[in-house]
Amino acid sequence: MRAVDLIRKKRDAGEHSREEINFLISGYTLGEIPDYQMSAWLMATWIRGLSRPEIAALTEAMLHSGEVVTFPELSGKKVDKHSTGGVGDKTSLILAPIVAAGGVSVPMISGRGLGHTGGTLDKLESIPGFNTALPLADFRRVLGECGMALIGQTAEIAPADKKIYALRDVTSTVENIGLICASIMSKKLAEGIEALVLDVKTGSGAFMQNEEDAVRLAELMVETAQRMGKKAVALITDMDQPLGRFAGHSHEVIESAEVLKGRGAVDLRDLSIELSAWMFYLGERTKSVDEGRVLAQKLVASGEALDKFRQGITLQGGEARVIDDYSVLPQVKNRTEVQSNASGFLSATNCMEFGVALATLGGGREKKEDRIDPGVGLEFHKRIGDRVSAGDTLVTIYYNSDAKLDEAKRRIAEAFTIGTQPAAPKKLIRRLVGN
Amino acid sequence: MRAVDLIRKKRDAGEHSREEINFLISGYTLGEIPDYQMSAWLMATWIRGLSRPEIAALTEAMLHSGEVVTFPELSGKKVDKHSTGGVGDKTSLILAPIVAAGGVSVPMISGRGLGHTGGTLDKLESIPGFNTALPLADFRRVLGECGMALIGQTAEIAPADKKIYALRDVTSTVENIGLICASIMSKKLAEGIEALVLDVKTGSGAFMQNEEDAVRLAELMVETAQRMGKKAVALITDMDQPLGRFAGHSHEVIESAEVLKGRGAVDLRDLSIELSAWMFYLGERTKSVDEGRVLAQKLVASGEALDKFRQGITLQGGEARVIDDYSVLPQVKNRTEVQSNASGFLSATNCMEFGVALATLGGGREKKEDRIDPGVGLEFHKRIGDRVSAGDTLVTIYYNSDAKLDEAKRRIAEAFTIGTQPAAPKKLIRRLVGN
Repeated sequence: MRAVDLIRKKRDAGEHSREEINFLISGYTLGEIPDYQMSAWLMATWIRGLSRPEIAALTEAMLHSGEVVTFPELSGKKVDKHSTGGVGDKTSLILAPIVAAGGVSVPMISGRGLGHTGGTLDKLESIPGFNTALPLADFRRVLGECGMALIGQTAEIAPADKKIYALRDVTSTVENIGLICASIMSKKLAEGIEALVLDVKTGSGAFMQNEEDAVRLAELMVETAQRMGKKAVALITDMDQPLGRFAGHSHEVIESAEVLKGRGAVDLRDLSIELSAWMFYLGERTKSVDEGRVLAQKLVASGEALDKFRQGITLQGGEARVIDDYSVLPQVKNRTEVQSNASGFLSATNCMEFGVALATLGGGREKKEDRIDPGVGLEFHKRIGDRVSAGDTLVTIYYNSDAKLDEAKRRIAEAFTIGTQPAAPKKLIRRLVGN
Repeated sequence: MRAVDLIRKKRDAGEHSREEINFLISGYTLGEIPDYQMSAWLMATWIRGLSRPEIAALTEAMLHSGEVVTFPELSGKKVDKHSTGGVGDKTSLILAPIVAAGGVSVPMISGRGLGHTGGTLDKLESIPGFNTALPLADFRRVLGECGMALIGQTAEIAPADKKIYALRDVTSTVENIGLICASIMSKKLAEGIEALVLDVKTGSGAFMQNEEDAVRLAELMVETAQRMGKKAVALITDMDQPLGRFAGHSHEVIESAEVLKGRGAVDLRDLSIELSAWMFYLGERTKSVDEGRVLAQKLVASGEALDKFRQGITLQGGEARVIDDYSVLPQVKNRTEVQSNASGFLSATNCMEFGVALATLGGGREKKEDRIDPGVGLEFHKRIGDRVSAGDTLVTIYYNSDAKLDEAKRRIAEAFTIGTQPAAPKKLIRRLVGN
């Protein structure tokens, strides 16, 4: 078998066998197939597409390019959640403690933010001392001790994905649902879980702006998980505006703690509870999603989920007192406001622009190598459907450097559409896929 | 401007500006754009195609990636010929002496054989001492002294093409007429010529097996040359069977000398005269192609063309006595025959298979690094339309090693189709493009 022939086959819209996919992925992982051949194949694949069997074979080949973790020492179920990302999406920090407090283990391998999206790892690292780079042995120990552990991708887990993703990023071959599905699922299925809840975002702040695309990706991921013997469900949720009231790393840790204290923004709380409920149900902790919802609410109300968060932070080397004293988190020196210059009703936001503005101010990455300023943040004062008067504050900006402040303010101001008629509030959970 | 954005644009079937093409080609030539980005762009380009203006811009960008030769010291016209390649195509060795003897200069930068095709440089190098790697200064001197010079691509001429071609070869992005046109024309237009005659092969031994594809490529190349102020014409010629009676390096040098001595195979002689006639006409040496044909025939009959060949060989370091004593050329130890097992009429050949069989026996390259055995050759005894009896010799194989002899014999035998009805002989020159 030769890579050049497989490139030709996909170029001519052929369908690969499982053996051909394995040859490509193992050859590339081992460095026997060079970057320039893989990038030609990726482009052919981006344009010609992948069939369902090809996607399944690709996912499995990438999954088996590294270690597949198992937890024979844990008696209970292991369940994870994955979100396709957006602005202000911090549910992992909330639902992991809730679900772990309820007795279902959450072995979560997360990513970093890039472009307009935030990353769970970056948010956790705003907590002084928090170590997301645990070796697998420590990951296992922390998970066993408290039922939750949140780390970054290791060299052992799905190395093919790490290498391929880096190449896709610089060859304009990212946005293809087959490649996205294989990338996500190869990592998630390496975690040793029995079930997975997917949060597929759609709207102006999501990768899949169009709801139909989001549903197609969700169906593909659910099917891929089920084909490999895992329970899975996907919620298609709204990202036409930020989730919760805050975006930015320190601010999102605070907002997560607030929800675990029974406070915080309604949409963030509702979605975190809903995802937790599904995790309880798929993890066979409850007999229904409704029961799962009740259990999740109870664990928040009793403070058990907050205690679990505290325990998890401590076990991963972080200062747990952050939960009681938010000033432990990195702060900024300055704040300013973006005000509305029109009166009416907030009818839409170009949500991606908030993420880009945040990155512009140092609160996110424009390039992979960029360092994040965790104190930088945005506070959103209005939601779609709200009445707005000229001069009302739309966003508070928390920042350190004003080097790109004007650009960020302009982006934020232009991202709001104020209409004359009251818009219907956005439905948070738009659809359910796979159950 | 960023390469990743230009890749995305072509991926989405966009049309590049001249500036964008220049950015890609100069960036890649300088090593600022890595192989893996260029290969993704090449695949997107292969699938999405290039517009006429994009092809023109690409050709010019590749042309100007290196030195563009000029010959201010030569008063006469400079004209070249390019063939898209096939089996037994040795016209360059014949027409260069004819045209130079007629007073039109032929600065010819040629290629090597790969796969089923032979290369002019490889054929010339079967002459002991012949140096095809002349530096530009020596190329200029030889050209000035005898009116012809035949060398290989130098590092100075169109370096972008050299680098891109190597990448296309290993990423299955070769067969695209826009990329082929830019590759050929960027080299030919760097030669300092005023006119170019193109021999675009079509049939079972050509890259463009389909005549319509050959015509499209021919039109594109003629248009590109004319757009850049060069006279150009293309002959669409038959490659449904080998050109002449022999394929293989020593054998083709001998056959070329035979034609220059007024003997040799009719089809080879006719095509060489016809291409020479067009070179005389476009080089403004004669007022018509008919006059050019008469002049070419006269130069062969008088022995002036043969003398010019002798002079050219000597000036490039070769042993010119090869022309009078063919035993100076590399010989083989063995010969065998492939005979017909049916009676009837030769109705078709799968001509590419002859080239592949020749390479299999060491008389061509399967991979770029392969060394050629110049004595290995094939002699063809029948042409399409000929009557064949069972037991007749179809091909004589001249070889050294019998390691792959059976495979070669099988390929050759299977490449002949013997029918029951007399097939019409193949028309050698099928069409004319651009005049």
